Amino acid sequence: MTDWGRICAERLEALARVSEPGPGVTRLPFTDQHAEVLDFLRSWMTDADLAHYIDDAGTLVGRHEGDGRDGTFYIGSHQDSVRQGGAFDGIMGIVLAITTLQKLRDAGMPPACPIEVLGFADEEGVRWPTALVGSRAIAGTVDPAVLGMTDRDGVTLRAAMEGFGLAPDRIAKIARRRNGALGYLECHIEQGPVLEQADAPLGVVTAICGIERHAVTLTGETGHAGTLPMATRRDALVGAAALVAEVDRAAQKTEVLRATVGEMHVTPNVVNAVPREVRLTIELRAPDDALREAASLQLRDFARRMAGNRGLHCDMQRSYIQPAQPCDLPLTDALAHAVGTVTGRTALRLPSGATHDASAMADLCPISMLFVRCRNGVSHTPDEHVTPEDLGHAVDALATFLAQLR
Amino acid sequence: MTDWGRICAERLEALARVSEPGPGVTRLPFTDQHAEVLDFLRSWMTDADLAHYIDDAGTLVGRHEGDGRDGTFYIGSHQDSVRQGGAFDGIMGIVLAITTLQKLRDAGMPPACPIEVLGFADEEGVRWPTALVGSRAIAGTVDPAVLGMTDRDGVTLRAAMEGFGLAPDRIAKIARRRNGALGYLECHIEQGPVLEQADAPLGVVTAICGIERHAVTLTGETGHAGTLPMATRRDALVGAAALVAEVDRAAQKTEVLRATVGEMHVTPNVVNAVPREVRLTIELRAPDDALREAASLQLRDFARRMAGNRGLHCDMQRSYIQPAQPCDLPLTDALAHAVGTVTGRTALRLPSGATHDASAMADLCPISMLFVRCRNGVSHTPDEHVTPEDLGHAVDALATFLAQLR
Repeated sequence: MTDWGRICAERLEALARVSEPGPGVTRLPFTDQHAEVLDFLRSWMTDADLAHYIDDAGTLVGRHEGDGRDGTFYIGSHQDSVRQGGAFDGIMGIVLAITTLQKLRDAGMPPACPIEVLGFADEEGVRWPTALVGSRAIAGTVDPAVLGMTDRDGVTLRAAMEGFGLAPDRIAKIARRRNGALGYLECHIEQGPVLEQADAPLGVVTAICGIERHAVTLTGETGHAGTLPMATRRDALVGAAALVAEVDRAAQKTEVLRATVGEMHVTPNVVNAVPREVRLTIELRAPDDALREAASLQLRDFARRMAGNRGLHCDMQRSYIQPAQPCDLPLTDALAHAVGTVTGRTALRLPSGATHDASAMADLCPISMLFVRCRNGVSHTPDEHVTPEDLGHAVDALATFLAQLR
Repeated sequence: MTDWGRICAERLEALARVSEPGPGVTRLPFTDQHAEVLDFLRSWMTDADLAHYIDDAGTLVGRHEGDGRDGTFYIGSHQDSVRQGGAFDGIMGIVLAITTLQKLRDAGMPPACPIEVLGFADEEGVRWPTALVGSRAIAGTVDPAVLGMTDRDGVTLRAAMEGFGLAPDRIAKIARRRNGALGYLECHIEQGPVLEQADAPLGVVTAICGIERHAVTLTGETGHAGTLPMATRRDALVGAAALVAEVDRAAQKTEVLRATVGEMHVTPNVVNAVPREVRLTIELRAPDDALREAASLQLRDFARRMAGNRGLHCDMQRSYIQPAQPCDLPLTDALAHAVGTVTGRTALRLPSGATHDASAMADLCPISMLFVRCRNGVSHTPDEHVTPEDLGHAVDALATFLAQLR
């Protein structure tokens, strides 16, 4: 019997070698490496009887016609990595989709439903300060202004696409009709430790978390660390410490909330001066917007009161917001049923803390996501790993899911 | 009647103009600015009937012979400033000493005791990574190795001294005999707000605080701020926040202890990653070594327990230590009596959180310090200010003190 998990693992190994020099995998969009993985993926699409082409946003589209009915179900992920990333984040979802369709074809059980496998060029947003151009093109939501953005060598997205043989001015034509889009599924490594800790190879995603970020500046007064009495200090770092503790406390007590102070800059930042100013970031993520917004308001209140009590000035500006994107319940239930069938146990349901192409596809059609257990919960590092066995479970779950699509 | 406070103010204004270009006063040792202030100071020493010379460490020595007895009382301070510092820190002590002796001479009441006014070249240690070379030379404690240190232009201390007309190899000959050194007094701005808050123009110093510094590294694990569940995080910054809060709490509850986290560096320091490592400094100062050491041990215990509870690794290394230097009680009582006579109220006694030339002079003889109220408690900034009235109080207290020296 063909070991499809092993085949996926070998395919991912081959693709991991397609990288800029250096540790791990560095595969940026519209580069020689991108072209080379497209050659691999196209040959496997051919093996799976998928008709394929590259659209003008650089997305590899592999089509299974099914019974020729109107309407298409999409399965996608991205080919690109971060710099010095791993062999699984993104690319695994494309390989799993192609391999699953090959398995179903080999078994003489091709899905009845027309299916397109989508291999997006740029999800990570590493090369240009934008991302999701492929999935947004499919959903019809690309802002043409992004084509003018430049990478660190001064190359515009437009020039890079043209150099890749694409016609970026035709991106608007890529958009699919909503009433023909049956749904979207994305397979991705979890990028977290939940499945590993639950000893579960697979999980289904309930929602892609909303995100908000705040830039906080606490301003007090500096002074000589030896001469300034403790009682009269307005130490910005002591205030910042209280805020960091509260951000953590708020999220520790609210199961689905994640809250992080990731960045902090202290001024003047010398051993013998009381800190005058601390700039820090707060990031909140939750699958539920109301819960996230309530936490944000409470933290804002805390910061204002704390600063007032300590003689500090507090400036807290929201710098970014992205609403939560719930997964479609019927699709998710079907996916959970497939996972349950394959694993013999109730599928674990969990939110996705990270953003995915599914966020953009949600503007077109119902979305769903399958998470695959990854070793130590890590991603965006050369240490990313998924076992061949888990890849096999994922193929089986995908096959079960696609077989039931009507 | 001569307004000696006003004269001091005018002299300090003239000296403040002797600075490198830029905001405030920048007057580094062995520079054209140093030479220029020495010209001013020498002319005022001549006015006060002080015989003067520059010793081979660059200290301006102005000698009042008194009744010619054996033994000398020293009054000193430093001519140098930090970069973009103020018009009072250091230089005020030299001007007050010279002007007081001029006042006593004018009044026909020269002190009976032989007195040397010492104008040290380098107390701040801005130009080379050493300091107190003038007072250490007097005390006989200069390490000749410091002569090889280079400033940011690559100029050694030795070369700068030679260029200033000094013979640094003769520094060892500067050292005074202990049994001829009757005592040392230094007048300095408080560099803190205690006198201002007590509405007192002058205060006497009980001790120069001991200092210890620690370099702390807390190491946890980074991860995606969206995907890493709160419960399993090993967030180095959350741990650091607990330590910052505890350092502040420890010092808030212990009157004479000052404890500061002045410096903090977060890694990787990005908005959407859990901090993996935080490096921070802890500085403790106290006039009582036992108290400081007890606080240090308690903080070390706290850091170890806190890190253990949070799954962090804590490395805490002592990077610097300097014991407290108590002021001589008889000298301090005499100074307090002089201050009481001048101000009509009991002299306020307070520790010095900052280090001074007096710390080095303590190796030679009993030390004492007079603090003068400074506006808003600030130093090392162009905003440093002492009123002419307070300068006048200081002259009066110094005169009273010197008159009683036997």
